[in-house]
Amino acid sequence: MPYPMEGLPQQVTIYEVGPRDGLQNESSIVPVEVKAEFIDRLADAGHKVIEATSFVHPKWVPQLADADELLARLRRKPGVRYPVLVPNLRGLDRALERGVDEIAIFASATETFAAKNLNRSLESQFEMFEPVVARALDNGVRVRAYVSMCFGDPWEGPTPIAQVVSVGERLLGLGCYELSLGDTIGVGTPGHVTALITAFRRPDRLAVHFHDTYGQALGNTLAALRAGVTTIDASTGGIGGCPYAESATGNLATEDLVWMLRGLGIETGLDLGKLVSTSTWLAELLGRPSPSRVVQALSKG
Amino acid sequence: MPYPMEGLPQQVTIYEVGPRDGLQNESSIVPVEVKAEFIDRLADAGHKVIEATSFVHPKWVPQLADADELLARLRRKPGVRYPVLVPNLRGLDRALERGVDEIAIFASATETFAAKNLNRSLESQFEMFEPVVARALDNGVRVRAYVSMCFGDPWEGPTPIAQVVSVGERLLGLGCYELSLGDTIGVGTPGHVTALITAFRRPDRLAVHFHDTYGQALGNTLAALRAGVTTIDASTGGIGGCPYAESATGNLATEDLVWMLRGLGIETGLDLGKLVSTSTWLAELLGRPSPSRVVQALSKG
Repeated sequence: MPYPMEGLPQQVTIYEVGPRDGLQNESSIVPVEVKAEFIDRLADAGHKVIEATSFVHPKWVPQLADADELLARLRRKPGVRYPVLVPNLRGLDRALERGVDEIAIFASATETFAAKNLNRSLESQFEMFEPVVARALDNGVRVRAYVSMCFGDPWEGPTPIAQVVSVGERLLGLGCYELSLGDTIGVGTPGHVTALITAFRRPDRLAVHFHDTYGQALGNTLAALRAGVTTIDASTGGIGGCPYAESATGNLATEDLVWMLRGLGIETGLDLGKLVSTSTWLAELLGRPSPSRVVQALSKG
Repeated sequence: MPYPMEGLPQQVTIYEVGPRDGLQNESSIVPVEVKAEFIDRLADAGHKVIEATSFVHPKWVPQLADADELLARLRRKPGVRYPVLVPNLRGLDRALERGVDEIAIFASATETFAAKNLNRSLESQFEMFEPVVARALDNGVRVRAYVSMCFGDPWEGPTPIAQVVSVGERLLGLGCYELSLGDTIGVGTPGHVTALITAFRRPDRLAVHFHDTYGQALGNTLAALRAGVTTIDASTGGIGGCPYAESATGNLATEDLVWMLRGLGIETGLDLGKLVSTSTWLAELLGRPSPSRVVQALSKG
């Protein structure tokens, strides 16, 4: 029996990041046919948005070197979106060749992470994104922007809210349809989430992307829902390791999120049983148990 | 930098259950000197209430068979309360002999669990508790009542809220100063928490006791705080296995709770670093990593 809570949305879109953000951060390299089956299973479980892969250079992310082949193998289910991550113009051209109609770019909210991850300054990252977004839009391709390190980074400590808003508004200004505010190192807490979201003018243009490194992902999600966000990033099975603690999880597990939303009577369209059996199947192939609490609990039941 | 959230309390009491509820459910039997050191470390880290052990029959819970010796060894820190669990009159007498000034009793919110755990009906459990509470109060001993299976149990499904309230109000009527509402199997979600707490007349007499079996413990805690509860049960290191999933956690980890409360600017008086080093030390002795996300993250740092 669901127990709704005042001030929460009726319906939530779960933006599934497992195949890209999850598998990109797993130490094993998963065969392309397994990836394709993983994505097909996610669609079958009811997912409407599945970030499929990344057109990043294979030297940087060997886990996703098979992006072209994977997209060729995908059995696209009608009504399901399959965005891909694109780091630059070359990646965008590969995506366009494959007929991709939705991409995501990956920006940084902090100076140090911009330097380390993008080899750019906080300011000059926009010069890199501008032509990518422009060419994508010219080709009728929608663009989502990840903003990473929105709550803190390992070098600079807490990220000033005004700085996140400034980066985010500029990305929206380039023409991105949505920002995914990432707590890349998982340090945020619910009041911080509320403060960050309410600092933006348009909560309806925001998604949140929480990592469970400090166990805060679901509490933070609750705060985000209360603040008006209705798109939540999550990774089926919680796959995607965290570089700061091998045994800790990275992404919020889709199953744990669905458990909460279902209890709250919030519609997601997802079949929890199918998600759990997908995660159990994948965990066996990855050779380690899923870090999702729900998967752990239900797969023993 | 803390980010407070509207509608939350300024201060929270963490009722530490690790030495009793945690160690009682661990498969290893921990030597009494380790238990005593564990409790001393918890007090040193700033805990003001530490449930030390249980005067249950050693045949039922061999893990805590050393309750008398443990209490004799305890270096009581001024200002710290050390309640013990007491199942019946015989247990109470042992506790009184040891000079215990605060006990807890363990009731059930469901018929089936009352039968399985107490060998009583839902109704007749009060006959068992009544003389225990009366004799305790006569001796100047405060009594807390745990109410288990408040959100659901494995046999009957969701527990009706009216039934939990009825059990709880009767326990308060016997003279208990506080109810600890337990989600023993971890199935609750935030709206359910709000509904249950607001169904009671006195939220100031309530504590909550969440299990993280489905990853919901911290989100549920946030809902409880919003509903006016200011006492939260937690187990340092998240110790205490869950019988339904070996690898899943049982109790909410004190460290994960402190991370959230600290971020919210809510005072707990606890030293997170000392808690984490205590959990790391204990995990080594228990021969398995702490299930606390915060302990996992910070002990690798």
